[in-house]
Parts: sequence; structure tokens; C-alpha cells
Amino acid sequence: MKKVAIIMGSDSDLPVAQKAVAKLRMLAVPYEVHVISAHRTPEEAKDFATAARKRGIGVIIAIAGKAAHLGGVLASWTTLPVIGIPCGGDGLGGIDALLSTVQMPPGIPVASMAVNGGENAAIFACQILALDDDGLSERLNADRQSMQEKVRDKNSKIEEMFN
Amino acid sequence: MKKVAIIMGSDSDLPVAQKAVAKLRMLAVPYEVHVISAHRTPEEAKDFATAARKRGIGVIIAIAGKAAHLGGVLASWTTLPVIGIPCGGDGLGGIDALLSTVQMPPGIPVASMAVNGGENAAIFACQILALDDDGLSERLNADRQSMQEKVRDKNSKIEEMFN
Amino acid sequence: MKKVAIIMGSDSDLPVAQKAVAKLRMLAVPYEVHVISAHRTPEEAKDFATAARKRGIGVIIAIAGKAAHLGGVLASWTTLPVIGIPCGGDGLGGIDALLSTVQMPPGIPVASMAVNGGENAAIFACQILALDDDGLSERLNADRQSMQEKVRDKNSKIEEMFN
Amino acid sequence: MKKVAIIMGSDSDLPVAQKAVAKLRMLAVPYEVHVISAHRTPEEAKDFATAARKRGIGVIIAIAGKAAHLGGVLASWTTLPVIGIPCGGDGLGGIDALLSTVQMPPGIPVASMAVNGGENAAIFACQILALDDDGLSERLNADRQSMQEKVRDKNSKIEEMFN
Amino acid sequence: MKKVAIIMGSDSDLPVAQKAVAKLRMLAVPYEVHVISAHRTPEEAKDFATAARKRGIGVIIAIAGKAAHLGGVLASWTTLPVIGIPCGGDGLGGIDALLSTVQMPPGIPVASMAVNGGENAAIFACQILALDDDGLSERLNADRQSMQEKVRDKNSKIEEMFN
Amino acid sequence: MKKVAIIMGSDSDLPVAQKAVAKLRMLAVPYEVHVISAHRTPEEAKDFATAARKRGIGVIIAIAGKAAHLGGVLASWTTLPVIGIPCGGDGLGGIDALLSTVQMPPGIPVASMAVNGGENAAIFACQILALDDDGLSERLNADRQSMQEKVRDKNSKIEEMFN
Amino acid sequence: MKKVAIIMGSDSDLPVAQKAVAKLRMLAVPYEVHVISAHRTPEEAKDFATAARKRGIGVIIAIAGKAAHLGGVLASWTTLPVIGIPCGGDGLGGIDALLSTVQMPPGIPVASMAVNGGENAAIFACQILALDDDGLSERLNADRQSMQEKVRDKNSKIEEMFN
Amino acid sequence: MKKVAIIMGSDSDLPVAQKAVAKLRMLAVPYEVHVISAHRTPEEAKDFATAARKRGIGVIIAIAGKAAHLGGVLASWTTLPVIGIPCGGDGLGGIDALLSTVQMPPGIPVASMAVNGGENAAIFACQILALDDDGLSERLNADRQSMQEKVRDKNSKIEEMFN
Repeated sequence: MKKVAIIMGSDSDLPVAQKAVAKLRMLAVPYEVHVISAHRTPEEAKDFATAARKRGIGVIIAIAGKAAHLGGVLASWTTLPVIGIPCGGDGLGGIDALLSTVQMPPGIPVASMAVNGGENAAIFACQILALDDDGLSERLNADRQSMQEKVRDKNSKIEEMFN
Repeated sequence: MKKVAIIMGSDSDLPVAQKAVAKLRMLAVPYEVHVISAHRTPEEAKDFATAARKRGIGVIIAIAGKAAHLGGVLASWTTLPVIGIPCGGDGLGGIDALLSTVQMPPGIPVASMAVNGGENAAIFACQILALDDDGLSERLNADRQSMQEKVRDKNSKIEEMFN
Repeated sequence: MKKVAIIMGSDSDLPVAQKAVAKLRMLAVPYEVHVISAHRTPEEAKDFATAARKRGIGVIIAIAGKAAHLGGVLASWTTLPVIGIPCGGDGLGGIDALLSTVQMPPGIPVASMAVNGGENAAIFACQILALDDDGLSERLNADRQSMQEKVRDKNSKIEEMFN
Repeated sequence: MKKVAIIMGSDSDLPVAQKAVAKLRMLAVPYEVHVISAHRTPEEAKDFATAARKRGIGVIIAIAGKAAHLGGVLASWTTLPVIGIPCGGDGLGGIDALLSTVQMPPGIPVASMAVNGGENAAIFACQILALDDDGLSERLNADRQSMQEKVRDKNSKIEEMFN
Repeated sequence: MKKVAIIMGSDSDLPVAQKAVAKLRMLAVPYEVHVISAHRTPEEAKDFATAARKRGIGVIIAIAGKAAHLGGVLASWTTLPVIGIPCGGDGLGGIDALLSTVQMPPGIPVASMAVNGGENAAIFACQILALDDDGLSERLNADRQSMQEKVRDKNSKIEEMFN
Repeated sequence: MKKVAIIMGSDSDLPVAQKAVAKLRMLAVPYEVHVISAHRTPEEAKDFATAARKRGIGVIIAIAGKAAHLGGVLASWTTLPVIGIPCGGDGLGGIDALLSTVQMPPGIPVASMAVNGGENAAIFACQILALDDDGLSERLNADRQSMQEKVRDKNSKIEEMFN
Repeated sequence: MKKVAIIMGSDSDLPVAQKAVAKLRMLAVPYEVHVISAHRTPEEAKDFATAARKRGIGVIIAIAGKAAHLGGVLASWTTLPVIGIPCGGDGLGGIDALLSTVQMPPGIPVASMAVNGGENAAIFACQILALDDDGLSERLNADRQSMQEKVRDKNSKIEEMFN
Repeated sequence: MKKVAIIMGSDSDLPVAQKAVAKLRMLAVPYEVHVISAHRTPEEAKDFATAARKRGIGVIIAIAGKAAHLGGVLASWTTLPVIGIPCGGDGLGGIDALLSTVQMPPGIPVASMAVNGGENAAIFACQILALDDDGLSERLNADRQSMQEKVRDKNSKIEEMFN
């Protein structure tokens, strides 16, 4: 089974990465986690991305804030699907990271998640891998149903409280 | 081979859809195109999305402007990967469609492309399908090299002009 | 008398819902409260909205944050008036939810309140129901006068303090 | 039957008003149209709003651009439901009018439509009036179905073109 | 000597008003402070503004947040100069109040200060009144020189610390 | 009678200046117009502002676009009231000039008008000068009434057209 | 004398590059122009940047739009000063390119110019090179004086027209 | 060796200045620090900037918030390279300071760093001075390698934790 690689631009992005890791574990999808800076360690970014497909990686998740170039830089070295998670925490609320991640020019896509959207990046990576993996597809469906159950439970509590 | 489904929220989104179609044709990936409005024809949205996987669709591309709910609505009915293209053309420049597409809450991801990013949506869909299709993977690599050649050609012309 | 239905996209929207509930109670308008996620429980959203008019509901208030599709999704299944409350609390300050709520395309309106505007959604719902209910209309006028008194009281205190 | 009053802050807002008028005509709802400036003719704004309910008006639609105070000013003089349409056409794309319309403080709601959303304001006004008018409710449903047919027609043409 | 009237839209704007009051006191300019809501007490707004000039008021400072209509509403009832202070404190950071204050349509100006700019509103009011009051003009110049001294003192401390 | 000085940062701001000039002429207020660049001719900016009060100028209107520093630079050299008009015309729609004009730090106010608000800057300057000039005050009132008449005329035409 | 290298991300950035070239020619500073895409030709970006200093280049100007990563990518491979010009032309007005250029994380600076600021990038590059080149420093001063003359000429014309 | 001058518009900008100072110390580049307000002490701004080159200063770093005119004002009096650091901390998150700093009109550049980007301003200043100083160039390269080592160390820790 192909792996999901989670790349943080900085270890300050760890809380977002952990949300992705938790979801991948729950869905039993293999993963690896690295810190690679698009700007400080561009050689590592190149080496990682060019070798990723052969190393059995299927999807790359790039987590970065501010002028978030990490997704685009990784995507420039590979044709594997790259998912970008723009991080926000300072005054601009992540709009800088969002636009830097999503507004990729024609030819080299990066698929952007919501600001700090670690869980959804993991789910989307699994949705990609599930195209060729019926077991994972079933686990995704079960997870979706579990979400529905949680909403229904919350609804029951709210209805008891108010109605 | 799995198909890519391109769903426009309105036929005014046709120019963006055509950029996606052109790229899919170039990369020899089967596709289908539909107009389904998240708000005007929600039943069709539901029917399409719930049946899509069984009909052999692998990736859904949702194209919509303004309060662009189409990607989210389709994603609510399927666990197939949904790529959203926010459309812009009026005074807000597409920032409304971008935020409506990308800021999905945890659990139901939509992968956002750039505003009006039709070509990249197609490429990203192909990158997904190529995980399980070596021929497509090679065509993506060849396309990437062709892009590089075009940049090099432009560079040569610019260098002749200026240097 | 018709009821007001308050739908939260998530139970994290409870503080906003409670402001709406408090106002509806004060104005003696019947209401019910539910948690329905546009994306996690779309079937419930459909079922609720399509049955709402027959169940005696007159106005729907939809509370949601981030890519706030809830108002639009409910409106796609009914011609009852839907009021949207965009919620904000993270870095983007609710501008994502506001644009996702208000920028509805022609044909399917959602009436947007201010970010986190729970009280106003309730008042607006009452203004709608009061068109056909003179008692409620009088209670609204009395509430308006009570607001004026409060402003005048505050003015008196400020004038004592400063003038 | 109660009337819908459409108030333009300036006659430059006429194109937006005409979209509202066309929809009201189609749905056979009586209306009147006026130009009242919140800032240039505040006395008229007060007189109009305070007398509106007695004159048989059920809903007020306020159309204004830039620092769009018209909806709020009218709402300050009446407890009738006021729908605001923020207009945009200059460099800021209407975000100034949108925020000025929608961000009303607690107590005095204005229900905001999308920027330049004339058609939806009319539909929403009709949805309000239809709560007490089964015929109008049926016309709204028929209009919704007609929209669906138009989407389906467009879909058929697109499917012929592409599939 | 003409007075400066400080009008708060809500007593939650008190901290901003106090900055203005402190500066007016320091510059020995008479003032009065009131709470008048553009939306909750529009009659008071009208009465205050129409009577202001005759009551000896020379400049009106309007302090309001969110859809800050207060400056525009007061200006609609008088030709006295109205200075608006947009207040911010929630998620949008005051950009809503700023645009609602500053983007006044042609004919009825409101002079906007910075978000929460209480001190500058007072200084600007004094600059207006000083055109006809040499003593105040001298006090403004002295205040300006005092500001310069403070900057120079801070500079000395910083230079000692670093250089 | 004191004069109004209109300072353009560049002659490309002429259309905005002309709206101010037209209004000042209509209200019979003396004025002068200059081109002074805050950045290219800072010495002229200093000389103009420091001499302005003695030369009989009462109000300075500063017109500038992009990083619009002109109002702040002039205000740094004088305690005369400075009105800033942020100009917009390129992609950012004037939000850069607006924030650069209005967000002045405590101590040195610039009173901002709307983007491209030439007419209102002139009216506001006259409102300032009218505090000490009953004739101008009457002309302002007459101008206000003339605006009201124009709105009423437009209203009559619209009412004929629609009602 | 060290050269200035102008790198365009795409030949669509040519108009901005030409403004830079024109200024460099006027100031007699040697330059070279290339098209290198951060995403399509990352190897060329690396090769260019790593070799630049040895090839006699002193300053790199990077011109790019949308998610403008070019400046950051070049800066990741060299410690030469990199000036970024964010390009704008579509609906977002260049705010995406501006934030992607300027919000670089600590460690790897890119010095951002205004949106489409080709002329200023060239001047700033010359200001850098002039630190070690008295002739260039004098040409910059002469150019500054020539700008002042142009402003004064425009001022004379405007003063003739209006005063 | 030329010095770097760090100018704060207010001593509240000290934390940002200290990041710059720390980096300059680490790179053994001489510096001086001053507080000069563009608006409160414009004469000092003029005197400092006009004398800077002769006093041996090579690069000026201007730190300011809100309507951050300091960089532009200093640049108007000198042709030395001026680096601007927009400061943010209030509700607008620094976007006001960023646009006021970066959107300089043609002719007078200010090179903008990220919001609160004190460290990068220092590095960029050193990159400028290193063009003529091989020792500094080597220290910059060593600092870059040290950054890389830190990223690699963090990567090792993360890999141990997760993989």
C-alpha cells in the first residue's frame, strides 16, 4: 500500500500535522513525517520529492505558514499529488498562507485544504488512495457514518436541552 | 480506466470547464461534463454524487462561483475525491468562491485549486488517477517536460531580445 | 402560530444559537433547535428542509462557520425563508463564513445576518412572522422601545459621568 | 395582499432594482419603487419607514452602495423586515457596501443579500409574504421548478457538446 | 468657544471616548458626551444633530463599531463637521466599521479617523476649532512639541540601550 | 476668508482634484491647487505645510494613491486640519491608499474621505470654514437642500416609471 | 561592475520587466533578463541562483504573479539579495502575489516592491550597487533631482491651470 | 565597514527591533538604533536621512505600524537603500502597515519585509553589505548552513517521534 508523506515546513506546524497523523492512524494508512523547509533546506525538498514515488509514497501533504511555498516547491519536483495545508496563527489569520498555497499557476497544481485543515488533508489523501483500495474505501465510508452518528448524538442532546 | 467528472454549477462556468477538458483530452483521460446546481438542482447533485463511484468515476471536479457550495455539496454525498475550482469574474475577484470552496470544516474535504484554475484541476485529477496507471504517469511526466521546454523556449526568446 | 427552526451546523455554534433562543423566548415565539451538518448529515438536511413547511415551521435560521454552506443547502430544499448566521472565531474572523452565506447565486436566497448575529436573526424571524400576527408585532415594538430605554439609561449615566 | 417597497439610495442603483422588479412582476406580487437617500433625504427615509406598515407594505428592500446605510436607517424607524442589497461597481467590489449592510449591531437587523443581488431580494421578499399566501407559495414552487428545468436544459446541451 | 460633542453608539465604546475626552481636557476645549444609537434611538440622533449648531456645538465626534452608521446618520441631519471613529474589537478587526464610516457617498462627508482613534479625533476637532482661536492653536503647537520631546526622550533611552 | 489648499501627489490625481475644485467654486470658497509629492519633493511638502497657516490657508486637502503618505507628511509639518483623499484605480481598488491615509498613529490626525471622494473633501473643508462664516454656512445649507431636491426629482421620475 | 539579473516567472510578466530594464539602462547598470519558472523549471532556478554570485551578479529581481514563489525559491539557493515584484492583473488585484512574496519566514528574506513595481525594483537594485560605486550613486541622485524637476513642472502647469 | 541604522517609529516597536539587532550582532555587522517618528519628529527624520550616507550608514531599516509612513519618509530624503518592516499587533493584523510600506509609488522604493519581520530585515541588510565584504558573505553562508542544520535536527526529532 502506498504511503502518505507529511512534510512540515517548520516544527511549529506540529499541531496541524498531528491532526493529520491521528486520522491516518485511524484509517490504517501508512505514513511518514518529516520537517523540510522549502527555503532553508531546498536540497532536501528536491531530494525528497524526486525520490518520493519510487520510495512508495502516493500522496504528499505539505504544511506551511506565511508565504507558504512548501507545497509548490515539492510539486515542482514531482508529479505525485501534493496537498497543501496553509497554517495560520498570527495577525493575518492565515490568508497569506492560503493564497500562497492555492493560487498556483497553470501546470503545477497544489490542492489546498482549509487553514489549519490537518484532518481533512489526511481524509483527502485517503480518498485518493482508496480509489485503488476497497478496504480503505470501506473504512472511509465507515468513518463518514461515524461522523454522522456523532452529529446525530449531538443533535439528540441539543434537542433534549431545547425542545 | 476511471473517469473524471466535471460538474459546472452554471453554464457560465464553461470557459473554466473547457480548460479542464482540453487538458484531460491531451492526457487521454476519459471524462464527462455536466451542469448541476448545488442550489437549484440539489436532487441531481445527490443522485450524481451517490452513484458516481459505481458508474466508474474516480475524481469529481466541481466548478462554481460566488458562494460556491457545489464542491461541498457533492462531497457530502460521496467519499470520492472532490476538487473544487472557485470561479471569479465580478467585483470581489473570486475571493468569495475561494473561501466558500476551501474552508471546508473537518470531515468532508474539498481540494481547492486557484481561482479559475481549470487546467490545474485536470492535472491534479490525472495525478490522482496516475497512482494506479503507469501510462498516465508517463504522460504526466512528458507533459511536465513539455512545459519545461516551453519555458526554455520563451527564455531563449527573451534572452535574445534583452541580453 | 408558525415556529422558528434554529439549525446549528455544529454544537460549537451553541453560544450563537442561545442568543437567538433567548430572544425568541422573550418575544414568546415557538421554536425548535437542531444540529444538522450540511456536509456530514446531508440527508437530514434534506429531510428537515423538505418537511419543514408542513411541520408548521415558518422561518429557518441556519448557523454555521468556515465554508458555511448550511443556509444554502437548506434553502435548496425548501422555499421557506432561510436566515443565515455566519460564525467566526478563528483567524479569518468570520469573513469566510460571511461570504459563503451571503453571496448566494440568483434563484436561491439566504438572508445573512452579521457575523455571530444570533439575536438579530431571532428578531428578523419575528419580524417576518409578525406580518401576520399583530400581537407579535406589538411585542416587537415594545422590545424596540425597551432597547431605546436602555440606550437612554446608558446615556444618562454617561452624561452624569462626563458632563 | 401586502406590497414590497423597493427603495434605491440613488438612481444609479436602477439596474439592481430592475432585477428585483422583474422577479416581483413574474411572481405577481405588488410593489412600489422609490428613491430615498439615507443621507440626503433622511426625513423622507423616516417618513417612509414609519408609515410603511400602515400603508400596506410588508417588506422593504433597500438598495445602496459604498457606506450603505440605507437599510439600517430604514430599519431604525420600523419593525417591518428590511432586506438590504449591497451594490458594488467600483474598485472595492462592493465589500464596503456588504459590510455596511450586514454587520448591523444587535437589536436592529437588516437581512443582507449578495452584492448586486436584486433577484434574490425579490424572491426572499416573496418567501416572506408567501407564509400567509398559499397562491404565492405555489408560484414560488413553480418558479423553483422552472429554474430546475433551465438547469436541466443547460445540462442537456452541455452533455451533448462534451459527452 | 464652541464645544465638541462626543457621541457613542454604545457605552461599550467608552474606552475610545475616554481617549478623546482626555485630549480635549488637556487642550482645554469644552465638550459633552452622549450615548445615541443610530439604529435604536434615531429620533435622538435627529434631535441632537439638528439642534447641535444652535446649542453651540462646533464639531461632532461619532464613535461606533460594526456597521458604523452613526457618523453618517448624524451628518444627514446637520452641516456641522462630523468626525467618525470606527471601533474594532471582534474578528474583523474594525474593517467593517472603517468602511461603513469612511465610504460616504458624495454630498454628506464624514471624516474618518483610524480604527479606535479616539485621541486623533479630539486633536482633529481642536485643529478645526483652532482656526478661529489663536490660544487653542498655540496649545496645539505646544502639544505637538511635547510629543516631539517624548519621542526624543524615548530616542535617548533607546540610544543609551543600544549604541 | 481662509483658503483651501488642494495638494495632489501626482497630476494623475487631477480628476479627483477637479471634483473638489468644482464644489469649492460652487460654494464660493477660495482655493489653490498644487502638485507636491511626499516622496519626490519632500522639501516642498515641508515648505508648503510649515508656511500654510501664515499664508492664509485654513484647510489642506491631500490627494494621493497607493502608499498614500502625502496627508501624513503634510500633517507632520503643521497643525492645520489635513483632509486625505485616498485614490484608487488599480487592482487593489484603493484599499492600500485608504489604509495608508486613515490609519494614522496617535498624535497626528489625517481625516480620511472615501476612496476618490473629491467632492466630499471640498464639502468637509467648507463645513470647517463655515464654523466662522455664516454666509458659507448658509450656502452649505442651500447646497444640502439642492441635493435633496435632486433626490426628490429622481424619485418622481422613478415613481412615474414604476408605480 | 556587478550585474542585475531580472528573472520573470513567465513571459506574461514582460511589461513589468521592461519598466525595470528601462530604468537600469537609464542608470547605466549592466543587466541580464531570463525566464525561469519556480514551478516548471526548478532545476534552472537552482542552477541560476547557485551560480549567480560567481557569474558577477549582485542583485536578483524576481517577477511573478499569483502564488508568487519565484523570489523565495531563488533566495533559497543563494545569499545574494533578492528583490521580489508581485504581479497583479486578475481579479484579486495582486494581493495573492504580494503576500506570497513578502511574507517570507525568518531566515530567507525577499525584499518586496509594490504590485507591478518594476521601476522601483530597478532603482532599489541600483541603490544597493551604489553603496560601492560613487558614479552610480551620483547618477541616482541626478535621477532623483530629475524626478523633482518633473514634479515641479507638473506643479507649474497645474498652478497655471487653477490658480 | 558601513553601518546598518535601525529606526523605530515608536518604542513600542522594540521587540521587532531587537530581533534585527540580535541578527546583526550574530553576523558582526555594526549598527545603531534610534527612535524617530515620521509624523511627530519629521525634522529628525529629514536630518537623519540626509546625513546618513556621510555618517557611514549603508542601509536603513525602518520599523513602523498602522499607516507606516516611516520607510517612505526616510527614503524621500536619501538614496540609500531603505528596508521597511511593517508592524502588526492590533485588529487589522498589520495589513495596514504592510500596504503603507510596500505600495510605494514609482521613483522612491522601500523594500518591504514580512509583517514583524525583524530578523529578515537584518539578514537582507547584511546581504546588501556582503556584496562588498567577502567575510560577511561567508558569515551569511555559515548562518544559512546553521539554519539548515537546525531544520535537519528538528527533522531528526520529528522522524524519531513519528516514523
